[in-house]
Amino acid sequence: MKITSNFDSGNIEIIEATDPTNIQLAIRKDNQSDFYQWFHFRLNSTHAQVHKIHIVNAGQSAYPDGWKEYHAVASYDRQTWFRVESEYDGKTLTITHYPEAESVYFAYFAPYSYERHQDLLHQAQNDYNCQLVELGETLDGRDMTMLVVGEPDESKKKVWIIARQHPGETMAEWYVEGLLDRLLDEDDGVARALLSKAVFYIVPNMNPDGSVRGHLRTNAAGVNLNREWQNPSMEKSPEVFLVRQKMLEVGLDMLLDVHGDENLPYNFVAGSEGVPSYNTKMQQLEEAFKAAMLLVTPEFQTEFGYKRDEPGKANLTVASNWVAEQFKCLAYTLEMPFKDNANLPDEAFGWSDVRSMKLGQDSLTAILAVVDDLR
Amino acid sequence: MKITSNFDSGNIEIIEATDPTNIQLAIRKDNQSDFYQWFHFRLNSTHAQVHKIHIVNAGQSAYPDGWKEYHAVASYDRQTWFRVESEYDGKTLTITHYPEAESVYFAYFAPYSYERHQDLLHQAQNDYNCQLVELGETLDGRDMTMLVVGEPDESKKKVWIIARQHPGETMAEWYVEGLLDRLLDEDDGVARALLSKAVFYIVPNMNPDGSVRGHLRTNAAGVNLNREWQNPSMEKSPEVFLVRQKMLEVGLDMLLDVHGDENLPYNFVAGSEGVPSYNTKMQQLEEAFKAAMLLVTPEFQTEFGYKRDEPGKANLTVASNWVAEQFKCLAYTLEMPFKDNANLPDEAFGWSDVRSMKLGQDSLTAILAVVDDLR
Amino acid sequence: MKITSNFDSGNIEIIEATDPTNIQLAIRKDNQSDFYQWFHFRLNSTHAQVHKIHIVNAGQSAYPDGWKEYHAVASYDRQTWFRVESEYDGKTLTITHYPEAESVYFAYFAPYSYERHQDLLHQAQNDYNCQLVELGETLDGRDMTMLVVGEPDESKKKVWIIARQHPGETMAEWYVEGLLDRLLDEDDGVARALLSKAVFYIVPNMNPDGSVRGHLRTNAAGVNLNREWQNPSMEKSPEVFLVRQKMLEVGLDMLLDVHGDENLPYNFVAGSEGVPSYNTKMQQLEEAFKAAMLLVTPEFQTEFGYKRDEPGKANLTVASNWVAEQFKCLAYTLEMPFKDNANLPDEAFGWSDVRSMKLGQDSLTAILAVVDDLR
Amino acid sequence: MKITSNFDSGNIEIIEATDPTNIQLAIRKDNQSDFYQWFHFRLNSTHAQVHKIHIVNAGQSAYPDGWKEYHAVASYDRQTWFRVESEYDGKTLTITHYPEAESVYFAYFAPYSYERHQDLLHQAQNDYNCQLVELGETLDGRDMTMLVVGEPDESKKKVWIIARQHPGETMAEWYVEGLLDRLLDEDDGVARALLSKAVFYIVPNMNPDGSVRGHLRTNAAGVNLNREWQNPSMEKSPEVFLVRQKMLEVGLDMLLDVHGDENLPYNFVAGSEGVPSYNTKMQQLEEAFKAAMLLVTPEFQTEFGYKRDEPGKANLTVASNWVAEQFKCLAYTLEMPFKDNANLPDEAFGWSDVRSMKLGQDSLTAILAVVDDLR
Ligand SMILES: [Ca+2]
Ligand SMILES: [Ca+2]
Ligand SMILES: [Ca+2]
Ligand SMILES: [Ca+2]
Repeated sequence: MKITSNFDSGNIEIIEATDPTNIQLAIRKDNQSDFYQWFHFRLNSTHAQVHKIHIVNAGQSAYPDGWKEYHAVASYDRQTWFRVESEYDGKTLTITHYPEAESVYFAYFAPYSYERHQDLLHQAQNDYNCQLVELGETLDGRDMTMLVVGEPDESKKKVWIIARQHPGETMAEWYVEGLLDRLLDEDDGVARALLSKAVFYIVPNMNPDGSVRGHLRTNAAGVNLNREWQNPSMEKSPEVFLVRQKMLEVGLDMLLDVHGDENLPYNFVAGSEGVPSYNTKMQQLEEAFKAAMLLVTPEFQTEFGYKRDEPGKANLTVASNWVAEQFKCLAYTLEMPFKDNANLPDEAFGWSDVRSMKLGQDSLTAILAVVDDLR
Repeated sequence: MKITSNFDSGNIEIIEATDPTNIQLAIRKDNQSDFYQWFHFRLNSTHAQVHKIHIVNAGQSAYPDGWKEYHAVASYDRQTWFRVESEYDGKTLTITHYPEAESVYFAYFAPYSYERHQDLLHQAQNDYNCQLVELGETLDGRDMTMLVVGEPDESKKKVWIIARQHPGETMAEWYVEGLLDRLLDEDDGVARALLSKAVFYIVPNMNPDGSVRGHLRTNAAGVNLNREWQNPSMEKSPEVFLVRQKMLEVGLDMLLDVHGDENLPYNFVAGSEGVPSYNTKMQQLEEAFKAAMLLVTPEFQTEFGYKRDEPGKANLTVASNWVAEQFKCLAYTLEMPFKDNANLPDEAFGWSDVRSMKLGQDSLTAILAVVDDLR
Repeated sequence: MKITSNFDSGNIEIIEATDPTNIQLAIRKDNQSDFYQWFHFRLNSTHAQVHKIHIVNAGQSAYPDGWKEYHAVASYDRQTWFRVESEYDGKTLTITHYPEAESVYFAYFAPYSYERHQDLLHQAQNDYNCQLVELGETLDGRDMTMLVVGEPDESKKKVWIIARQHPGETMAEWYVEGLLDRLLDEDDGVARALLSKAVFYIVPNMNPDGSVRGHLRTNAAGVNLNREWQNPSMEKSPEVFLVRQKMLEVGLDMLLDVHGDENLPYNFVAGSEGVPSYNTKMQQLEEAFKAAMLLVTPEFQTEFGYKRDEPGKANLTVASNWVAEQFKCLAYTLEMPFKDNANLPDEAFGWSDVRSMKLGQDSLTAILAVVDDLR
Repeated sequence: MKITSNFDSGNIEIIEATDPTNIQLAIRKDNQSDFYQWFHFRLNSTHAQVHKIHIVNAGQSAYPDGWKEYHAVASYDRQTWFRVESEYDGKTLTITHYPEAESVYFAYFAPYSYERHQDLLHQAQNDYNCQLVELGETLDGRDMTMLVVGEPDESKKKVWIIARQHPGETMAEWYVEGLLDRLLDEDDGVARALLSKAVFYIVPNMNPDGSVRGHLRTNAAGVNLNREWQNPSMEKSPEVFLVRQKMLEVGLDMLLDVHGDENLPYNFVAGSEGVPSYNTKMQQLEEAFKAAMLLVTPEFQTEFGYKRDEPGKANLTVASNWVAEQFKCLAYTLEMPFKDNANLPDEAFGWSDVRSMKLGQDSLTAILAVVDDLR
């Protein structure tokens, strides 16, 4: 029996792994940070029996409530990620599984590797309607890359999609993959209508270093990028610095910043009601977008979500707030669950890579519903 | 140079085919009927030059206005059907084309063969959630087949989808293929939500005989099935007789009857405002469905369509009217263009098989929007 | 419970089909002929029980020994054809099956439809290296079509592949599909080497009328095409007349005529040892081809096969003999089993469409082994 | 304009990259080693002009003759790797390319990433006939993994396939992917016949650390694994130590050790004629294997290759020699070109990932030709 994690986004520490019924593991902290919750490891075992895997430091992780009614994902073939029995006692997350193959990967959510990220970017750039734009470099020397979809034209709205500031929220990049697939589909009416009215600026992965390192929330220097939007620096948060700079150069009429939420078993959006410049127009756009999402997919809902900011009290270091205040526009943080969508539960797979992709596709319809009014 | 049509849904008569620049053809009438407009033939030629194909009896076809701003479809590989230059002078439709391969198929719209029809039925029945039901036999001895999707349960709504009463309207079966693909997709939220609330009764092809024979509007006996719903008979219109009988046996809470329209370059629905029992509830359901369709896809619109029936003046021999009157429910005829969608034109492909499939997929979202109120 | 066969290559007559445990059927004779053995029908049933299907005239069919140790094929989805329990008592073939879906197709071998035939031709012609050539028309008015693969050049050998003179031998067209796929694969070394040395003239279906009609051995007029090569006529055997004429016009350095054999559970070839002009060169080519096939695939063998013709006693009305005599060249009839390959049995699928395709692919390697010596 | 290499198997140093027509780069040495030749980098540029990329230390690389008539590979989408104009003047390799997209990857040969490696292993283990076996860990802590295909049984021969001891020889892992695909294909006669007679022990990547690091020839410690077979150690060469130990435990009747050769534009094998125990039986097996390969594919040849070892003078630190001597069996080093196969040149792609896969598939036929005589 052996547990390893020396691969893209691997994260685990082995405390003891000799007795299959009592495997003791711990999640590593993000580098230079106290955040941790993302895990990703491979179990190789020939024991034809139940394996009990205890993640003993679950209780002190960034979001302990995230483990309640949470079920880890596992895969034999690295394509299909299914849910496995998992229980949380307030301290330890215990995964119970009888492996049907010699090697099993376990993760917090279906991983999205840096290889797949590069595939996504380069298969997209091959489309005549899509351009790859290099923005600069991360602290670990990886590329910060943006895709521009549509023929730029001043009359068109500028829609920005950014994802995975928090690298452990891999659903965010699956979401972008779905959205992008549809946007480049020349037979799709929504995509064609949208591209006659808007240009898309898409950053599929805001935090490649954290992604490869197996971080939950921070970049290589342990910085939470979604608290850096007021004063990013090339030293601490080049990822935000570079994208923000491009936003200011290009302009922006709408932002979706795509995330995953550890606690809530729902898809939802968080708006910018708390920014100083919030106004009726912004509110109407928010309402219209939500109404469209509600109609387009039962995966979306508006009942559960974050507590609304009080007027003027928004945290302007957060991407969507900073953007809303800066550009006086529609700016949403979009959240997907690590758990399941409690409104449409699927015991076998929970919220998944595939469902995230579909939500990305569906979001285009909601963007089309508001695009004419964005400016 | 040679022109042939002895294959599934083939329809053409050769008047003269010796000079590539002056090929003279005529469309055959439906058997025992005066209707004609569907054509489907194959041109084999080695002449490296422009071919001019004149369909000389276009002017007396069922819908002469259908040829205005219409462009025929063609294919080299029988998978991709593109539009070719076509002009109508009030009498003759002239197709001008420089073939890039030895053999080219031309058709009124992307064909949907009886082989593909059987594939559709049998790949669907393999899904655990879908059952194939045999209803009986056509005049030519073909099978009238229905698919039932979802676990029957009295509390669930009964949604019927029927298509291609008029066999030349092949987009109707492409639409059903798209709708069915999505309905059987276990990762799709709309499909999962729908199947928790409704059972689908789907007849992908109401007129297999006319389809194989290359008819425009009628069955093997030259009968227009969409005028048979009040008094169908096993002698003249077994297709309607059998399906109507099953509707009465099973029950029905909503109907979509899927068609293609020769004249209008738009997707639209025609409701049952003219049936005696029409009421506010039916009207509200119609409005809700249309509103959802409008939001879900820019391929749909409500500005252009058929003249509305006056109250009580609906033709009850038509499927959607007969159903609305019989079941006091939402019943729509859904129409797609043979031409293009003028709101979102695509010169290269026009309205197409692929776009029809997507409209079928999108329709599920609109059904979900009304499903709770159907009964 | 219902049995139907009104579809491409359908063939059955219903004697009685009321009791699932005692279904009585008969195979129809080929039109204007006494040959019969091909069957293809669809059973629709909701009885959750074993079905016993008796083909009561099996004993008088063309090849009664063909039913010994034969197992019928069946399919729920028309893609996967598996073997079902079948027993032959000298008179009746009894198929015993417990259907796992509402509708099941049964056939003598995996069908190859006219729609798929047209797809094969037209997807091939899209390749820059392949040309579709129309030869003329069958008695039912279908197209006799040939594919030419490779750039014609007098120095290159001319390799002819013809298949399915006997339309019920569908494995012959599956074989051609496999061979063609590989021949058009630009990354395949065997294909690239071959096309630098030879041009291929391929007739994937020598008998489209018989194929659509559900015949075993003959064309629309009940003529066995493989006895027509000395004196074909446009009246009785235009299929042979047209292809033979093209052979005489183009030339020929090698022929494979692809067939299925009802009795022998093996793949094998039959040569032209009995033609008057048979010589050492022809013999050496035959030996070299067989040796290569033996090495390339364990699906091929030389132990079992037809009795060898005595010198000068070959039937010159048979394609491979007529060709060998006419062109003094390598000419083989290649036979595949309807049963299984007894050297490599697969209980679940027997000899199959997929294995036929692979044998077609493998044959190219054997052709390459002899190509330099063909002329 | 920007050049980066911080990704799987990336290897380049930037000397100067400001003027597109004069980009100066150098290849990094393998860690703790002087070997270098593998390169892999990404060029991002918006200059619509020819780019000239000089690899200035090509002349001192491990195999300077490897650059003669060599053409680098490039890709826009990371799937299709095409050849680009490259010239070597004895010192510098100059790549001249006009990019058709914003971002282009360049490499010494089509890369095979560690992600794909893990996909290969885990998709294979899902097959009922394949088992994944963990052997231990590399110096960088990666998994040394073996696949066992076939039901172990003492009567069966034990065929070992190992690949990519030299990590820059990525064609070796492409070869294994092809071989494995075929071996697990249940419809393939060669695979089925082989698995009734042999069990396969396959190590797709002998050097994962070197692969990820972008090395040419060595592991993380700069050790050339193919010189370690007499005295491997867990400290310097755990990769060899672990595999060798398993060979001794399991047994071995045949070995293919798969490589790429920098200089020779041919596929060939190097045998064990120089090992002390070399005998007639081994020679006959070698001859039979080569004869089969020659017949199976024109991609293989025996005219060009390495100088044969003199009797008893073989280097027993090399895998195939050590194995031949240890197990008195057939053991071949199989070499594929980095350049092209000069016998069947393809200017656009050269020797490629796809052709390597096909050679792997074809090799199974040659193994079948000798399998009965292996022991
Ligand atoms: Ca592009
Ligand atoms: Ca079913
Ligand atoms: Ca062509
Ligand atoms: Ca397995």
